[in-house]
Amino acid sequence: MGVSLETIVAWAKRRGFAYPGSDIYGGLANARDLGPYGTELKKNIEDNRRKYFVQEREDIIGIDSQILMNPKVREASGHVGGFSDPLIDCKKCKSRERADKLIEEYLHKNKTKETELPKHRAGEKTPAEDMMDFINAKKIKCPKCGTCDWTDPKKFNLMFKTQQGVIEGEGTDIYLRPETAQGIFVNFKNILDTMRVRIPFGIAQVGKAFRNEITPGNFMFRVREFYQMEIEYFVENDEKVGLKAFKEWMETSKKRWIDEIGIKKDKLKFREHDKEELSFYSKGTFDVEYEFPRGWGELQGIAYRTDYDLKQHIEHSGKDLQYSDPHTGKRYVPHVIEPSWGLTRAILTAMIDAYDEEKYTDGNGAEQTRVVARFHKNIAPVKFAIIPLVKKDEKMVRIAKEIHKRLSKTYMCEFDDSGNIGKSYRRQDEIGTPYCITVDHQSIDPKDGTVTLRMRDDMKQIRIKPEDIKF
Amino acid sequence: MGVSLETIVAWAKRRGFAYPGSDIYGGLANARDLGPYGTELKKNIEDNRRKYFVQEREDIIGIDSQILMNPKVREASGHVGGFSDPLIDCKKCKSRERADKLIEEYLHKNKTKETELPKHRAGEKTPAEDMMDFINAKKIKCPKCGTCDWTDPKKFNLMFKTQQGVIEGEGTDIYLRPETAQGIFVNFKNILDTMRVRIPFGIAQVGKAFRNEITPGNFMFRVREFYQMEIEYFVENDEKVGLKAFKEWMETSKKRWIDEIGIKKDKLKFREHDKEELSFYSKGTFDVEYEFPRGWGELQGIAYRTDYDLKQHIEHSGKDLQYSDPHTGKRYVPHVIEPSWGLTRAILTAMIDAYDEEKYTDGNGAEQTRVVARFHKNIAPVKFAIIPLVKKDEKMVRIAKEIHKRLSKTYMCEFDDSGNIGKSYRRQDEIGTPYCITVDHQSIDPKDGTVTLRMRDDMKQIRIKPEDIKF
Repeated sequence: MGVSLETIVAWAKRRGFAYPGSDIYGGLANARDLGPYGTELKKNIEDNRRKYFVQEREDIIGIDSQILMNPKVREASGHVGGFSDPLIDCKKCKSRERADKLIEEYLHKNKTKETELPKHRAGEKTPAEDMMDFINAKKIKCPKCGTCDWTDPKKFNLMFKTQQGVIEGEGTDIYLRPETAQGIFVNFKNILDTMRVRIPFGIAQVGKAFRNEITPGNFMFRVREFYQMEIEYFVENDEKVGLKAFKEWMETSKKRWIDEIGIKKDKLKFREHDKEELSFYSKGTFDVEYEFPRGWGELQGIAYRTDYDLKQHIEHSGKDLQYSDPHTGKRYVPHVIEPSWGLTRAILTAMIDAYDEEKYTDGNGAEQTRVVARFHKNIAPVKFAIIPLVKKDEKMVRIAKEIHKRLSKTYMCEFDDSGNIGKSYRRQDEIGTPYCITVDHQSIDPKDGTVTLRMRDDMKQIRIKPEDIKF
Repeated sequence: MGVSLETIVAWAKRRGFAYPGSDIYGGLANARDLGPYGTELKKNIEDNRRKYFVQEREDIIGIDSQILMNPKVREASGHVGGFSDPLIDCKKCKSRERADKLIEEYLHKNKTKETELPKHRAGEKTPAEDMMDFINAKKIKCPKCGTCDWTDPKKFNLMFKTQQGVIEGEGTDIYLRPETAQGIFVNFKNILDTMRVRIPFGIAQVGKAFRNEITPGNFMFRVREFYQMEIEYFVENDEKVGLKAFKEWMETSKKRWIDEIGIKKDKLKFREHDKEELSFYSKGTFDVEYEFPRGWGELQGIAYRTDYDLKQHIEHSGKDLQYSDPHTGKRYVPHVIEPSWGLTRAILTAMIDAYDEEKYTDGNGAEQTRVVARFHKNIAPVKFAIIPLVKKDEKMVRIAKEIHKRLSKTYMCEFDDSGNIGKSYRRQDEIGTPYCITVDHQSIDPKDGTVTLRMRDDMKQIRIKPEDIKF
């Protein structure tokens, strides 16, 4: 058993990673604001991905499309018609539940054989009638009161709707985007027309998405407002080529979660969906899951979506979204691989994965416990804390300030002159700062001039010249 | 006369800076998506500000609060009651206008003396009745049909409203934030409780805000969905201290627009508001304006807001938002200076300011025109373009790839093997790349090994060893 979610929630608030949204007004259901360290953590994960995929690769470019789009985009993408949860009410206690979630829990608990699954099962695409047949056949009970007496399912669209226009009632209904991907597809033609792109190439985007979830929860796992990082990677309209690219994206993803973000390998599950689970248009889906305190949950999905999305937009917009191969002259609608990361979930995962409580023996031989956030140094919110040992010693403070000023040009650093070195170390351990630099008596001795470099993970200390400090 | 807005719009689309939002569906009124270079430009402006204010300064930290907040936040901030435009209809032609904009244009055209202003004039806070008195007294005419016969003003709230909750009609009305500042005030207590902050200190945030504007327009100047960068800087509750901090922020701002973002000095206007224009709670407001093709427009506002916002939140939330001074033990509600940048407007400004059409004489003595985007190198979307002169020469391509790979670890670079050096240079000039590196015959000569470094601004070329290239 690892850490509990309650511990993480409390630590995240106490240490400035995530606060309840609109806190002083009693909050807003499941809303979370990122505190100073959460904001840095987000930036580091986001920048790391951008550097790797957009800056260092030649074949991927970024865009930043709007949250509010023409409503026709959402008709083409199927979100107006189909993006809904099947809600059922318990006739006895009036509790409202999601039919698909009840089935998921049942299957999970009973390790059900494939023959027992609802008919036409394809994950989110399972027809509501099939779900109800299954629920009634298996007599799945209301988790609140234990009765099995359900209403017919109602479809509830997950998109937030608003109005754009001059006067209330005279405006146009528009939606907050429920994902960032369609902003990429809608700009596909603009990119073809204005950028020197050659297939295969990708378009990347990071941004907010919104889903009016019925059952949000588990801290930042399922929230109504969240960050996504998505790439649409366009390849030849050939299944062999597409499957090869799909496999490459799977391998890249595995490597990145482990090597670059530093998530523990044994907490990750890499799972390719079987045919039964796939959407009708998909030729492959791959999930990266993490073992959260309350069970496995999706961090990233990679879907080989063939030419489905572009064809939908061709049909609905009447525009030609074909690619012309400059060598062969062949014109075609490309296939697409979609790696889609949950950025808000990546922040949550990084926090849970880093959190550790560790016993150690202090200098006096007493047993102590410390909280230490073992973030990979790539994503640690603060890289160096610079601490003058004696806050009233002007020389120490001056040297510490100089080091802080120099390192701050490149790294996020903290200056801590609280004057209690033990407390400072504990605080930096809790926010996951890899290195503390302490300016002490030896540092102000002109014959010595070294500082103490203290390592977060093993608490080892070495003496080093300030100019030799490297990250 | 400078460049026209139409030229900028066309160039921004043609060169991948900004596309019309939802383009293939005929767009969405005044919506703009950032293309690949617009996305980089945005990131560079944003990162530059973050580095300067959050990373390099000890006294400012970042947060990232939600777009959707508890509706009580917007009651306290006055946005539910007051954040509205005074709309009037022409009784003859039914054209709908903003009363305040009609007056603004009138004052601008007539260079009106102060005695002629509407009574109680305080910018956005001028009462609608005073506006109508003025419009009728001056016989301000409908710009469409020339009549002066107006309806009474209707107040139209600028916030986008949506519903959060389980079933349509059963949800709670909530708003898309019209600015990012309240997310900072609402977290003030969390920051005091969890971060080691001492007054004076600031909290910074970057993010989307939304305003259902009646009269959006002028490309990306007034859009409904836009990025803001705001800081709330908290100081002692003493007007002298506050005014001093206010003045420091004014000076910092002037310097940054000119030195760090590189905007032309003569296109900027720095204007402190006179007493008449100030909101009742404000002790000072300072605008940074840019001369856009259609006139002067605000880029940044700095407001000395005293303790108004925190006191509003104390009253509405019932929470204690006082600061305790650790030295004196004094408890008080801090004063606040609010520097508020329009990030979307900064992107627009950077584009307009950089755009240039220049005549030059080419190698054959012919006169040519080139478009060159003279972005400050801090914010240029691409820093280096690496170009093999002959695309079929394997050695040139290999060396160019090596240089690209090395520089891409640090900078956004482009690899261009289109094989037409003239076209490549013109393209890089248009997107504002400061340096082109061309790998040519001398580069593959083991006795030479130099490349051509070509400068965007003066088109000068020098020969240099690839390892000596510095940004």
